[in-house]
Amino acid sequence: MNTAGRITGIGQGGHITLAHGGGGTAMRALIDDVFLQAFGNDPAVAQEDQARFPLSRFTAEGDRLAFTTDAFVVEPLEFPGGDIGTLAVCGTVNDLAVGGARPVALSAAFILAEGLELATLRRVVASMAACARAAGVRIVTGDTKVVPRGACDGLFITTTGIGTLPAGCDISIAGGRVGDVVIVNGTLGDHGAAILCARGDLALDTAIESDCAALNGLTQALLDAVPDVRAMRDATRGGVAGVLTELAEASGVTVRIEEDRLPIRPDVAGLCELLGLDPLYLANEGKLVAVVPAEAAERALAAMHAHPLGRNAAVIGTLAEIPASGRRGDVRLVNRLGGQRVVTMPMGEQLPRIC
Amino acid sequence: MNTAGRITGIGQGGHITLAHGGGGTAMRALIDDVFLQAFGNDPAVAQEDQARFPLSRFTAEGDRLAFTTDAFVVEPLEFPGGDIGTLAVCGTVNDLAVGGARPVALSAAFILAEGLELATLRRVVASMAACARAAGVRIVTGDTKVVPRGACDGLFITTTGIGTLPAGCDISIAGGRVGDVVIVNGTLGDHGAAILCARGDLALDTAIESDCAALNGLTQALLDAVPDVRAMRDATRGGVAGVLTELAEASGVTVRIEEDRLPIRPDVAGLCELLGLDPLYLANEGKLVAVVPAEAAERALAAMHAHPLGRNAAVIGTLAEIPASGRRGDVRLVNRLGGQRVVTMPMGEQLPRIC
Repeated sequence: MNTAGRITGIGQGGHITLAHGGGGTAMRALIDDVFLQAFGNDPAVAQEDQARFPLSRFTAEGDRLAFTTDAFVVEPLEFPGGDIGTLAVCGTVNDLAVGGARPVALSAAFILAEGLELATLRRVVASMAACARAAGVRIVTGDTKVVPRGACDGLFITTTGIGTLPAGCDISIAGGRVGDVVIVNGTLGDHGAAILCARGDLALDTAIESDCAALNGLTQALLDAVPDVRAMRDATRGGVAGVLTELAEASGVTVRIEEDRLPIRPDVAGLCELLGLDPLYLANEGKLVAVVPAEAAERALAAMHAHPLGRNAAVIGTLAEIPASGRRGDVRLVNRLGGQRVVTMPMGEQLPRIC
Repeated sequence: MNTAGRITGIGQGGHITLAHGGGGTAMRALIDDVFLQAFGNDPAVAQEDQARFPLSRFTAEGDRLAFTTDAFVVEPLEFPGGDIGTLAVCGTVNDLAVGGARPVALSAAFILAEGLELATLRRVVASMAACARAAGVRIVTGDTKVVPRGACDGLFITTTGIGTLPAGCDISIAGGRVGDVVIVNGTLGDHGAAILCARGDLALDTAIESDCAALNGLTQALLDAVPDVRAMRDATRGGVAGVLTELAEASGVTVRIEEDRLPIRPDVAGLCELLGLDPLYLANEGKLVAVVPAEAAERALAAMHAHPLGRNAAVIGTLAEIPASGRRGDVRLVNRLGGQRVVTMPMGEQLPRIC
């Protein structure tokens, strides 16, 4: 947040103008009034172009630094269960968390369209601040650009996160082994379904909310109970199908999923049936796929069930040998009659701008 | 770069489609073919959603971590002297470097418009790779989103950088003291002038190129020669005027600049005269303002002159007491006849989408 301390104020109403991205007094007022206050940054620190940390956050022998970034372009900006700000914070926290890292700090870069309502921006920034606080992470540096009306659709946010990765923690999408079990922490497809309904094209009246949530508390609880988690990934774009096909291929196994065991909300299942969508491919923003050794499955489930974000956790399948007739990277969905179908990697997301 | 190893190929021609941002096979092909190859990332590492570093990069007692982010929305995407990719790498490297940090790694998040030519993306990514190599920094993690035609204008890139900040290095915009001298490393306003001409609205035929460059080699040479640099800042949006007004206010001094000493290319000066622009406010992308104690000025200049990016370095002014009649934060430009005018902080950038 490069700004000096003088607060000139931008008022409560109004809209974003090109000057708010111009590096001058208007931008400084925006940063002081909207960002620094919400994120609780010290203006004297914020006027530097970089955040600085003592490395005492990384004290244990063998600790490593984890580093991840995501751009968020969701449409609409606000939807039941969250907004682009909650997505931006939770998404990046989750990318760190599923690798076993403890999130330390985030940066946030905003691309604003001229004409965006300041009230909208304030709400989104307040969501980011609240999510960050809840996840125990600070937003420490940022940037703001404004593009003319028509050059960008409202508001894009890119968050980047750094975290500490303890020695010996080497969770990898290639870490699954034959015999391991596959667990998800709750109902699938809620985010995708919520966005679909929020777009309003369908004139459907549903109570489906996005599952958007920061998973670092849950992953920590899981790792405390089962230090040898083999693989973990949040199931965002491409859904659980996307994660499982990557896992199957990277780990060199076949993933067998039992359709009966997939936790799906009845209203999400109904929406999928109505529209011919597959909940396995719908995006989630507060769901992870964890692969653990079979003997740790009960411990993993117990740890998840004890956490508010894992109450509906369930074992959904297992990792098996690649059959003689099979291809590396196959995911097989077994239905209640014992029939099987191959779940393929999606070509693209069913809904553009899902996150 | 979250992708698995299978390379399906996207061909040489073609355009970006929504599927390229959907988290499926199309996105994986884009990442494999365009990003990983250019950035030299290991596909096995790239398929994780985070980059991981040993902290052996931060070994000296007291080392800190520096962390900075910037979004780039420049228009046009390509211009004489660079493109949005060179800006994205140099801009973030420079934000680290002017704080005294040594850049270690960058992340890059891309927002692509449906319909963007793949050839354009390939050129931009090649520029990023070349700049990163030249600056000695690696692009280690990333993200790609695609928005429908009309929701974004071509291509936006957000880069985030981490670096090591040695113990005792506390360069700050508030660090200037009365008597210090103000140095710039070369001609002012080249980037702003180049973008203005590249937009083509003026039908001017000039040879002005952007000064876009990574300054970490230069800042390192300067800090080796003058460890007690007081303040340093790259003069991007808002130009040198923006930096000096922030410096004057944060440091509690008056900045006196001598007009005669400002290094300005004759063609940039001519363009400014023609259009009524002030080169002090024009954006730079390879220029920094450094404040050093008066007794270190010669050493600082010698170190800069010996570096290819500092050949035209010049002392342009000094820091003085705030006069009884003055206001905290004044920057005064003294012309060749001894007349003075106050340089105010710009309200906004003269040219939107300059970076």
